[in-house]
Amino acid sequence: MPKNNLEQRCVNTLRILAMDGPQKANSGHPGMPMGMADAVYILWTRHLRHNPNNPRWPNRDRFVLSAGHGSILLYSLLHLTGYPITMEDLKQFRQWGSKTPGHPEYEIDVGIETTTGPLGQGFANGIGMAIAQQHMADVFNRPDFPIVDHWIYAIVSDGDLMEGVSQEAASLAGHLGLDRVIYLYDDNEISIEGATDLTFTEDVPARFRAYGWHVQEVDGHDRAAIDAAIEEAKTVEGQPHLIVCHTHIAYGSPHMQDSAKAHGSPLGEEEIRLAKEEMDWPSQEPFFVPRDVVAHYQLAGPQGERAEAEWRELLTRYTNEYPDEAAEFNRRIAGRLPDQWEKSVPYFRPDGNPIATRAASGKTLRALAEQIPELIGGSADLSPSNKTHLPGEGVFQKETPAGRNFHFGVREHAMGGILNGMALYGGVRPYGGTFLVFSDYMRPAVRLAALMKLPVIYVWTHDSIYVGEDGPTHQPVEHVMSFRAMPNMTLIRPADANEAAAAWEVALKHEDGPVALSLTRQKLPILPEAAEKARDGVARGAYVLSDSPLERIDLILIATGSEVHVALEAQKKLKEQRIGARVVSIPSWEIFDQQPTFYRLNVLPEAVIKRLAIEVGSPLGWWKYVGTHGAVMGLERFGASAPYRTIQKELGFTTDDVVERAMKLMAE
Amino acid sequence: MPKNNLEQRCVNTLRILAMDGPQKANSGHPGMPMGMADAVYILWTRHLRHNPNNPRWPNRDRFVLSAGHGSILLYSLLHLTGYPITMEDLKQFRQWGSKTPGHPEYEIDVGIETTTGPLGQGFANGIGMAIAQQHMADVFNRPDFPIVDHWIYAIVSDGDLMEGVSQEAASLAGHLGLDRVIYLYDDNEISIEGATDLTFTEDVPARFRAYGWHVQEVDGHDRAAIDAAIEEAKTVEGQPHLIVCHTHIAYGSPHMQDSAKAHGSPLGEEEIRLAKEEMDWPSQEPFFVPRDVVAHYQLAGPQGERAEAEWRELLTRYTNEYPDEAAEFNRRIAGRLPDQWEKSVPYFRPDGNPIATRAASGKTLRALAEQIPELIGGSADLSPSNKTHLPGEGVFQKETPAGRNFHFGVREHAMGGILNGMALYGGVRPYGGTFLVFSDYMRPAVRLAALMKLPVIYVWTHDSIYVGEDGPTHQPVEHVMSFRAMPNMTLIRPADANEAAAAWEVALKHEDGPVALSLTRQKLPILPEAAEKARDGVARGAYVLSDSPLERIDLILIATGSEVHVALEAQKKLKEQRIGARVVSIPSWEIFDQQPTFYRLNVLPEAVIKRLAIEVGSPLGWWKYVGTHGAVMGLERFGASAPYRTIQKELGFTTDDVVERAMKLMAE
Repeated sequence: MPKNNLEQRCVNTLRILAMDGPQKANSGHPGMPMGMADAVYILWTRHLRHNPNNPRWPNRDRFVLSAGHGSILLYSLLHLTGYPITMEDLKQFRQWGSKTPGHPEYEIDVGIETTTGPLGQGFANGIGMAIAQQHMADVFNRPDFPIVDHWIYAIVSDGDLMEGVSQEAASLAGHLGLDRVIYLYDDNEISIEGATDLTFTEDVPARFRAYGWHVQEVDGHDRAAIDAAIEEAKTVEGQPHLIVCHTHIAYGSPHMQDSAKAHGSPLGEEEIRLAKEEMDWPSQEPFFVPRDVVAHYQLAGPQGERAEAEWRELLTRYTNEYPDEAAEFNRRIAGRLPDQWEKSVPYFRPDGNPIATRAASGKTLRALAEQIPELIGGSADLSPSNKTHLPGEGVFQKETPAGRNFHFGVREHAMGGILNGMALYGGVRPYGGTFLVFSDYMRPAVRLAALMKLPVIYVWTHDSIYVGEDGPTHQPVEHVMSFRAMPNMTLIRPADANEAAAAWEVALKHEDGPVALSLTRQKLPILPEAAEKARDGVARGAYVLSDSPLERIDLILIATGSEVHVALEAQKKLKEQRIGARVVSIPSWEIFDQQPTFYRLNVLPEAVIKRLAIEVGSPLGWWKYVGTHGAVMGLERFGASAPYRTIQKELGFTTDDVVERAMKLMAE
Repeated sequence: MPKNNLEQRCVNTLRILAMDGPQKANSGHPGMPMGMADAVYILWTRHLRHNPNNPRWPNRDRFVLSAGHGSILLYSLLHLTGYPITMEDLKQFRQWGSKTPGHPEYEIDVGIETTTGPLGQGFANGIGMAIAQQHMADVFNRPDFPIVDHWIYAIVSDGDLMEGVSQEAASLAGHLGLDRVIYLYDDNEISIEGATDLTFTEDVPARFRAYGWHVQEVDGHDRAAIDAAIEEAKTVEGQPHLIVCHTHIAYGSPHMQDSAKAHGSPLGEEEIRLAKEEMDWPSQEPFFVPRDVVAHYQLAGPQGERAEAEWRELLTRYTNEYPDEAAEFNRRIAGRLPDQWEKSVPYFRPDGNPIATRAASGKTLRALAEQIPELIGGSADLSPSNKTHLPGEGVFQKETPAGRNFHFGVREHAMGGILNGMALYGGVRPYGGTFLVFSDYMRPAVRLAALMKLPVIYVWTHDSIYVGEDGPTHQPVEHVMSFRAMPNMTLIRPADANEAAAAWEVALKHEDGPVALSLTRQKLPILPEAAEKARDGVARGAYVLSDSPLERIDLILIATGSEVHVALEAQKKLKEQRIGARVVSIPSWEIFDQQPTFYRLNVLPEAVIKRLAIEVGSPLGWWKYVGTHGAVMGLERFGASAPYRTIQKELGFTTDDVVERAMKLMAE
């Protein structure tokens, strides 16, 4: 390669930092950044429209490093182009509290658009961003006023493309014709276990063409070819774009190029020395960057300022022409819900007509969606069951991106990653539905929503063995508990229609993490006891739904969801036995645990040590609330196929079963 | 369609039962079975080599109903061809305790090869079966003695093919050239939310060709064409086969054909009456099957007997010619491990040299694999990290199916489904590795292993925040606890090398469910205290690793994995404070909970109420062991990127932190 011109030195700077960063940290991934340095140099200097001085500029192009292990590449670019990542930060790569962790962690103020590392997720995030962008563009753009008008770029790797989540997302992106998506595929033919031909010999371009993508192939070290391919991608409408870049991992390293060893380990001092010699690098000093290289990259600052200023000027004219739309656009981008939206939370009169919490959720969602236009979402081919469809709102399709209803297909995992991308993009408040048991399929994406504290809402229905006839494959048992173990996750399992309505209110107000609604398939009574208490009660995570009918509290029955009305019935029967039971509904452990001590002790007084928890799922964590002298009625087996009332009886969750267990507990 | 000939009546019988079964159950899925009746009729009567009188015949063809919602189709075929599923069983469709649950549940004695319903899983199971078959064939077949020689068929649906797990499995199957796989794709263009063109418009045949599959397209109601396509598939070598059957959902129903409504609900009495009229069906009586139809299907009995007898004859000759191989074949098919394999479980001398449990696991695996040839497996592109590679054993590839090492690629979910298929097939004892954090990617398959009680072993390494620099995306927090919530799952988190060796022994002896090994990335001391106790201790789930150094037990420190040696150090320091702490290592909750009460109380005496649990993960379920007066040192946040000793200090898991917490507990 030519060694001396400025462009080459700019590219090699990325390689130098990709070697020096991991070497200093004694861990990291130099191979991918060195291989993709040419391509990302072209992308960042000739195409990416961004403003390092304002990483939150709404109309910036998005850049997703789906191959998150190459984080040093992103940090180097952010540093060089002027984001608030210093050279000292680069030297703190992978250290406690640094801005440069092992994999990129979502931090928009330094220009990191999403957390990546778990493969395939960034790919799906970018599709979600493109969906949000198309939606916002269709809702807000006006003739001559393209206020939402930019591209979504990503670097994707072999590993990304092997993952099912990317395949699902690619299929949906092709269907939706998301032509603002331009992904550069680092086809370096190396994976951790060795050459990719050990296991990955499919025809990737043909596969993406089958999904409906526009595919090009280039030499990933031919910068002119990369430039031309990106230019061409921009001209081809109606299809997402994949540019296959044939690269060499660790390009520029005399002995490690094309070796799997270069993927996940520092190259070693001697090899780095040789590579720098080979590049005719002006200094062997670690992290040395020539001054003209710095100057060249820093052009991004004024360029970005200019680009944003032009857009702000456009927005000003738009605001004059379309003041209502502009106000709405600004409100949505700022993430503020419309004023007084809470007033539309429905109230369900306890009229004796039972209703499933999934149905109450559906009614609530429809009422809220009328007030909150940014509330958009759908289901993984289960909307008739999840009750997630918004009638009269249209469907998001290629020709109708203003539609608010999404057909994600039987692609739960992509749905999860796409919801994350939509939430990251902003301007929309996304929700997605499937059966609770299939939350397993989307769990890696849910974890990232929790890690990034994204305000995504999951509508997980059919939340127990009471799914009934569909049997154990469709009956969650461990799921509710498994999400309670996940940090930053809030799960709400409402006991009736009014708790379900309140759960939506809580979910929409909750902005620093995902909220999962665990909803029943079967009908539940609308509880008179909850009618006035549910809104405040759910907001506090747990509350005294019905206090002991005697003058003392002998026992506390603690339940969630479909077990609450059973507890209430048991309470009545226990009274006949002169046992005074308090019934506590605890729709959300996470919220309850954050309440002040006095509130928690008021709900669960220390003096009452006889406590019985009832939930048709894993009992694993209930001991926290029931203590040494309490008991848990839970399930430590899978369910079975039968009508749900039969299951209730056979597995021992009827009112009589609760009464019996409570009596036994009292006798102990 | 012609209404009266026997073949047509045989096909229509499947449609009749597909209508009547769900109608009687008042739930179920008639649409797919009606649409695929022609294709499966051809498959089951002209191709499938099976013996209804011996569903365990090792050389039978495998039939997987990946579209498990169409279970009534499978039950009907099993009933009609003579498996022990009676007409009464069909009438008990979806009822408590019946042989005919909502989705097929693995029960080999009635001919059900795998549990399906969660979409995409059956697809991957079939690939796993084909892998096991190729492996067994290559290991045991000899010239003129093809004792393993059959096909793997599956019915797959739109939903199956949309799921990422099937895409991963298809890519790997294409790479491996698994030509014994013949999948019939029910391309009915209908999903739950409506026509598949709402979301699924990719070119499926082109995609599968890109994976390397041999693809044909036929009219799914043209039985001759289906027959010919299956015949052709059998002649094309080196590629798996997809036969795209263009069908009409609910074919034969005058008003519900081609409607999404026919997917998941009974058609209704009137519609069924009309359909039966349209078919010129001889009776409106539910479940009526003409006598000649019964006779025709029952030919499968004698045909199967003949086929098996021929094979038994071959096996007898093989046994004469190759007695050692035959004995070995029979041993492996019977699922018996070799005699005295336990003797090869290694012992690690506590010599002061620390070793990561992943490394000890690797050494143990290699030692065991030498004795146990059926122990085969690999990793999802992480074998250098998971230590799952068996040196000198060769790699399973298209040309080398006797290889015992698998490169699953970055396809954790497919790996999970394939491991299940391998275990279902028998003759092999499969294991698969990835990072514990990425168990999320394979969780739906793990759940099915648990539901089916399959003896799959998971090698999940890098099991905590001590992953270190790779950061929170790669650091499990909630995972260990979330698997403890899963029924039938056994998780073992060994504390040192000898516990890791013992864990493998336990895992191999455990035959009624999956076992997960949770292993460290970082080195741990080989504990002198565990050297003699680990084998028995791990087999009991928990044990007293080191008793109180004082005459009394003031406190019990309960820990797993990498926290155990910290507990031991804390024990010493507490002694200096005149606090007598017992240290309990509890590598497996599930196993410990199954021990007799006296053993459990011996390890955790009721009188000692001061108990401190230490585990660098979600504390959710620990209260079960520590009780009201105990405490838990756990993590209710995500990790961070830094060297692991820094993380240990920053997040408060050093010996001093444990001592401090224990002192506080004693003071409470």
